[in-house]
Amino acid sequence: MDERLTDLTVRRLVERLATSDPVPGGGSAAALAGAMGAALVRMVVELTVGRPAAEGHAEELTDIGVAASGWQSELLNLAELDASAYDAVVRARRLPRDSDLHKQARETQVAAAVREATRAPLATARVANEVLGLAERLAPIGNRNAISDVGVASLLAVAAIRGAAMNVEINLPSLPADEPLRSDAADEIGALLVGLDERERAVRTAVADRLR
Amino acid sequence: MDERLTDLTVRRLVERLATSDPVPGGGSAAALAGAMGAALVRMVVELTVGRPAAEGHAEELTDIGVAASGWQSELLNLAELDASAYDAVVRARRLPRDSDLHKQARETQVAAAVREATRAPLATARVANEVLGLAERLAPIGNRNAISDVGVASLLAVAAIRGAAMNVEINLPSLPADEPLRSDAADEIGALLVGLDERERAVRTAVADRLR
Repeated sequence: MDERLTDLTVRRLVERLATSDPVPGGGSAAALAGAMGAALVRMVVELTVGRPAAEGHAEELTDIGVAASGWQSELLNLAELDASAYDAVVRARRLPRDSDLHKQARETQVAAAVREATRAPLATARVANEVLGLAERLAPIGNRNAISDVGVASLLAVAAIRGAAMNVEINLPSLPADEPLRSDAADEIGALLVGLDERERAVRTAVADRLR
Repeated sequence: MDERLTDLTVRRLVERLATSDPVPGGGSAAALAGAMGAALVRMVVELTVGRPAAEGHAEELTDIGVAASGWQSELLNLAELDASAYDAVVRARRLPRDSDLHKQARETQVAAAVREATRAPLATARVANEVLGLAERLAPIGNRNAISDVGVASLLAVAAIRGAAMNVEINLPSLPADEPLRSDAADEIGALLVGLDERERAVRTAVADRLR
């Protein structure tokens, strides 16, 4: 992967996802979905501030917009990082194993690469959870004419959390048994998923109530 | 909107989503999420065909891949169409209403534009539902090493269905009371949403079972 994913056109990115090249894959797609969610949060903040109905919420809206902007950049970076980290796993697995020395070197390289390929979607899940938190704060105060955009933002954030979690989980068995990240990552993903169904349903309901 | 959305770089598209310009918005983001889902289905098909474990599934895999390819193009087109259709609504709403004649002309234009802006996300929901169907067929037979990608594909398809549905629903009250699309669209969206929570949970479980 020479080119940066986020410098590809949207059409080319989608075509690249579709090829048998395992990079980019679901981890990058999850991060990009989260980035679109953060962007929609920002859009609705922009469409809300200064309106009479938003009176008394100016500070909250500014906070939400600033945070969304940071998470948007972070998720775009994580889409890249996920791809390059997984690419390193593929390359490490191709290293020679024709001698004990080579085997051992390969194992060390694979373990290091899988560690990074686990940390990337773990960070995506963590950041997408922050985006969901912003959408939850925005749902009751965002401009009603753009409330479906808050809804889409929430849905994309939830899909990013769950999708990134799956990408963490598929990597865990490839980590050495004594690698602390193995249980740390499982614990953090577990914590992020607790109550997520209920949170998703609540924000969907909040949006649906304001749609009518 | 002069440039085509899918010709923008990914970074630029996300930045464009974030601006106060209501176009592109959640409808396009939902369609792009669905397109990424279709692309991931294709990737997993490519990573599955020809493997010993896929024996006996060659025809089914080819069917899934061909269909996913079609829906991927369709969803990229729908991302554009959603933006241009909503742009037409914004422009129609800005038409003069300084005389009865102008008011009536404006109303006709707005109604026609809202109709198109409702049909676009309705089509997105319908096509994303097809993508989810493909991911459901792929979950039990797709390459286990890429099963998290089938999971992300399903999650993105579900987010696209629900997000597009919200974009249909926000438009319905702007349609004339006697416009048949008003109840037709509501009925179709209702049908697409029935059982969707259960379908999402089932495919998540199918993926989780094969992740272990």
